[in-house]
Amino acid sequence: MTEITLAAARAALEGKLKPSGSLGRLEDWAAQLAVLQGTLAPRVERARVLVFAADHGVAAEGVSAFPASVTAGLMRVSATGTTGIGVLGRSLGLEVEVVDVGVDDELGGLTGIVHAKVRRGSRNLAAEPALADGELEAALAVGREAAARAVAEGVAAVGLGEMGIGNSTAAAALLSALTGEPAERTAGRGSGVDDRVLAHKRGVVARAVELHRGCLADPRAALGALGGLELAAIAGAALAAAEARRAVVVDGFISTVAVLAAARIEPAIRPALFFAHRSAESGHALALEALGGEPLLDLGLRLGEGTGAALGLRLLAAAADILREMATLEDAAPAEEAPAPAGAEVPAAAAAGGAAGRGGAG
Amino acid sequence: MTEITLAAARAALEGKLKPSGSLGRLEDWAAQLAVLQGTLAPRVERARVLVFAADHGVAAEGVSAFPASVTAGLMRVSATGTTGIGVLGRSLGLEVEVVDVGVDDELGGLTGIVHAKVRRGSRNLAAEPALADGELEAALAVGREAAARAVAEGVAAVGLGEMGIGNSTAAAALLSALTGEPAERTAGRGSGVDDRVLAHKRGVVARAVELHRGCLADPRAALGALGGLELAAIAGAALAAAEARRAVVVDGFISTVAVLAAARIEPAIRPALFFAHRSAESGHALALEALGGEPLLDLGLRLGEGTGAALGLRLLAAAADILREMATLEDAAPAEEAPAPAGAEVPAAAAAGGAAGRGGAG
Repeated sequence: MTEITLAAARAALEGKLKPSGSLGRLEDWAAQLAVLQGTLAPRVERARVLVFAADHGVAAEGVSAFPASVTAGLMRVSATGTTGIGVLGRSLGLEVEVVDVGVDDELGGLTGIVHAKVRRGSRNLAAEPALADGELEAALAVGREAAARAVAEGVAAVGLGEMGIGNSTAAAALLSALTGEPAERTAGRGSGVDDRVLAHKRGVVARAVELHRGCLADPRAALGALGGLELAAIAGAALAAAEARRAVVVDGFISTVAVLAAARIEPAIRPALFFAHRSAESGHALALEALGGEPLLDLGLRLGEGTGAALGLRLLAAAADILREMATLEDAAPAEEAPAPAGAEVPAAAAAGGAAGRGGAG
Repeated sequence: MTEITLAAARAALEGKLKPSGSLGRLEDWAAQLAVLQGTLAPRVERARVLVFAADHGVAAEGVSAFPASVTAGLMRVSATGTTGIGVLGRSLGLEVEVVDVGVDDELGGLTGIVHAKVRRGSRNLAAEPALADGELEAALAVGREAAARAVAEGVAAVGLGEMGIGNSTAAAALLSALTGEPAERTAGRGSGVDDRVLAHKRGVVARAVELHRGCLADPRAALGALGGLELAAIAGAALAAAEARRAVVVDGFISTVAVLAAARIEPAIRPALFFAHRSAESGHALALEALGGEPLLDLGLRLGEGTGAALGLRLLAAAADILREMATLEDAAPAEEAPAPAGAEVPAAAAAGGAAGRGGAG
């Protein structure tokens, strides 16, 4: 593959028919994608949201506003395309693949989802490791295989999302393990718990981190002890997609924590990561900070399911199109006149003639 | 048309299969659109960006980083679909209509744009009214007619953008006239002027506002004295689209100032207005504040051309789809169990059973 430097991508954007930097954050994404794809004509023709679903033994601790049975209900609705991500994916022209990596329900006959159940829910991380070693490996492999399918089918960018009652507790514990931050900072209201349940949830997170402290220096072991099946699958998908130099668009709090675990396992994935949005869930900022990620959108989303990633994928495709298709300053210049060099200071007197870029905000 | 209250739209969103409010700002847009369209199943099947282009006599004062000839160059590139808005519109599945309402160039044979030139550029607003009364009326009519075409063709939402070297000076002067704010706060760097030109630009704005002070209490007269042809066309389009209860998605600084003038002429348009993004141009925040508008995106855009409005239109369509298509809590509940009422506090013990909504951030 051709190597494209960030400077070369930036220079190509400078040459476009617009004031320097005037497409803001879209230019950052276009440049990052150009480097990742190794071309100044990046493209996201097919994009897919991978949504991994699983249940969590820790839900038995009473840490969620919703019963665990809701995860299975969501899977049934997923098959009809009318979950939040189902609607948004269709609306935005994206593919959506929902993967059962560990829902605590049979779901056997359900069509329209991928069946890859490792076990019916993780164990209660507050009492024992959430996943045994073999289960962790199996869940990572489910994610890797979903990413490999996408790559094989020509998908240029994957979004990573999740469904799973109890998973904001698992993500908070994993984030505490990976960053050393206390439960008070990593655990938030999730699906909307009240003050009493929030205090209880933080206690559960603190207790779990203490229980597993011996193994948490290793990110893979931390993922197994605290993470849960869909978090492991997200980590596996991020690792495999990034290895194949596909863009990985990360969703909110839970997805970001799973991707943080992946980046601790393999730091080389970082250039493939695009952070779609800043979630309203309080711990998300910590996870982003740990990854050095600056999210594109700030819409107050906190649904999960990959809904923020879906919006990000659509904008990533648009950013690619800008770099690949937009006219240059030269294209707009009358043939006999040389364009002004990018970034040149054009004196006021030049207003009488000459050719250069322009601004809608002229 | 059925009347839908904001409370009814909010209640419908509360009933969706998600934690309360978890789609953040998208829910605000969905609710506003439901009220505007008079239905709890709002839809944006066709969306169109209207881009009005014109030149400005005030460019002769040396207030832009680019020569006025760039506007005509942009129109020629518009015909090839490779301007910023051309690329983004295609990328996002939107229609784009570029209207010459006053470019200082013949452009006669150019295909792919709408020819509706009122005159070749406005007059120099620092020396005389930018538009004579008849010219103002003609430019308003060009905008109205573009909106009427869109409405007749089944477009549910229009984005409003502009092209025109010198127009950030016109917009700054108009904003000063409409809000009483000094040039130091309304005039910014536009297409990227340096400190010296910025100081000069602010002087020009202050002088123009002083010159026309006698007529500025009337927003229509202010628009004629200071606004320019594409700003008047944007105002006309906003008025006509809002009267037809079509959503009006406003772009950046210049478009917002033009729409502010329209809202001063006819305050009843306000419920139709959606503010796509917060521009990097400094005066934009003032214009938004004057309209009580909270923008959806903050991507550091300052290109104009309707590029931010294009992103907003795509998200508006997605918001409509959420309200119209997303499953309800009832859809996910097993038949024998009643769903939890929206907003109900679910005690921790309920984790053992029962059915309700859920959270990806569970």
